Amino acid sequence: MSLNHSKFETELQVRPDDIDMNQHVHGSRYFDYVLAARYDQMERCYGMSMEEFARHGLGWFIKTAHVHYKRALQIGERFVVRTWVEDIRRTDVVVKFEILRKSNGKVCCDGHFEYAMISLATGRAEEIPDWIVQRYSI
Amino acid sequence: MSLNHSKFETELQVRPDDIDMNQHVHGSRYFDYVLAARYDQMERCYGMSMEEFARHGLGWFIKTAHVHYKRALQIGERFVVRTWVEDIRRTDVVVKFEILRKSNGKVCCDGHFEYAMISLATGRAEEIPDWIVQRYSI
Amino acid sequence: MSLNHSKFETELQVRPDDIDMNQHVHGSRYFDYVLAARYDQMERCYGMSMEEFARHGLGWFIKTAHVHYKRALQIGERFVVRTWVEDIRRTDVVVKFEILRKSNGKVCCDGHFEYAMISLATGRAEEIPDWIVQRYSI
Amino acid sequence: MSLNHSKFETELQVRPDDIDMNQHVHGSRYFDYVLAARYDQMERCYGMSMEEFARHGLGWFIKTAHVHYKRALQIGERFVVRTWVEDIRRTDVVVKFEILRKSNGKVCCDGHFEYAMISLATGRAEEIPDWIVQRYSI
Repeated sequence: MSLNHSKFETELQVRPDDIDMNQHVHGSRYFDYVLAARYDQMERCYGMSMEEFARHGLGWFIKTAHVHYKRALQIGERFVVRTWVEDIRRTDVVVKFEILRKSNGKVCCDGHFEYAMISLATGRAEEIPDWIVQRYSI
Repeated sequence: MSLNHSKFETELQVRPDDIDMNQHVHGSRYFDYVLAARYDQMERCYGMSMEEFARHGLGWFIKTAHVHYKRALQIGERFVVRTWVEDIRRTDVVVKFEILRKSNGKVCCDGHFEYAMISLATGRAEEIPDWIVQRYSI
Repeated sequence: MSLNHSKFETELQVRPDDIDMNQHVHGSRYFDYVLAARYDQMERCYGMSMEEFARHGLGWFIKTAHVHYKRALQIGERFVVRTWVEDIRRTDVVVKFEILRKSNGKVCCDGHFEYAMISLATGRAEEIPDWIVQRYSI
Repeated sequence: MSLNHSKFETELQVRPDDIDMNQHVHGSRYFDYVLAARYDQMERCYGMSMEEFARHGLGWFIKTAHVHYKRALQIGERFVVRTWVEDIRRTDVVVKFEILRKSNGKVCCDGHFEYAMISLATGRAEEIPDWIVQRYSI
């Protein structure tokens, strides 16, 4: 199933400890920025916080991370993480993202994550229940 | 010289990657939160950004960090980092801080940092110029 | 040009601060493990340290990171990062990697990075000089 | 009780992601290095791993961290973290540490941590059992 899902945005700011020896945001921190945005949007936009997933014995395991770097963010900069569900499969979702510099709207990096739904009890992949598919189909 | 200096505040939010195996903010991240607050306050409150110090060939080297942990912050929580100059010496300043949980104002940790002024060219301690003492004496 | 290039290995160990709220290595730290292995192998295996690149006014900018997660590493575990040059293009190299659990040799994650050669002076992509192509063609 | 306790050493190496915008190890990473050394030494030197503490329903909560910075470590450098129990109190231990550059034995930073024994079930401070005092009194 691949539909036109809503795009959601979270605004964040670069912290000094995100900066590496090359004087810009360290490559792996963009990964953390997407994680922070999804955490925020799960509750605020999809109405289903990470904690609520856990209360149902469910979690999301990251299967794949793909990041395409274009322009590096600098210390103190504000940026927007835009994410949307690209595809919902039997046990996985594909989430695309763009990280945009706040000052000029230019794309700093983009990419996608694949998440598998897992049972927290067994650690194994689980079919995504219909009611979760509904919540993610907005 | 030890006077009653102004206290400044920066509001931040816990990111998921700040959380460690004990399900709360990792001990060393509070250090990074103070750094983020000082970076913000140097420009916004003292009118002298880290970059402006660098243009004068000057930087601050951390001599001592002292953190007293009281209550751990949790994922997603908002908090306030309050800092103030406790003392200005010939080549050092002592900056005190408190990190307060936004929701109830309780102190999560407090402590102080000692920073030495250094010449970026030599890496050696430098007497703090009068005009910087002035800016930090608000 | 796509040849059978040598595979090199670096052994590392999980640090406690690499562990996240899910009790295993945080997803973005595998990215840092590959970086650590490449830093080691640039000098030890290719005879051309990152610092030597810098002395020639050259650096590697990460264009793409692709990580496929299979099994999570745990606190204290030893692991091997195996990397090899998959392809050398005009301004880019593609480096593949596998991260293997030391105790049983199983693949924990694999993927690839694309690096563009840049001039440190201009920050712009640069044709990879022949003598560097030679060094990377082992 | 303050006795002459044994000093233990763990050798580690700086990872590239430990380096910050000032081209040396970021201040909060020394905190993580001490944590890594204690994790290693708990099992290897005191015969009581963090996991074994957890199986007894016990954990160590960091009350205080005090770090005195002297010389910054650089990318790729090897170093030794030496720690020892300075004092054992009713519910706390004081652990001192030194981080030494491997190449010349010079002290890069030193300081101490205070840890409170807590019950993992209640999160509250707990009297340190005699058999743990014994293990830590070597």
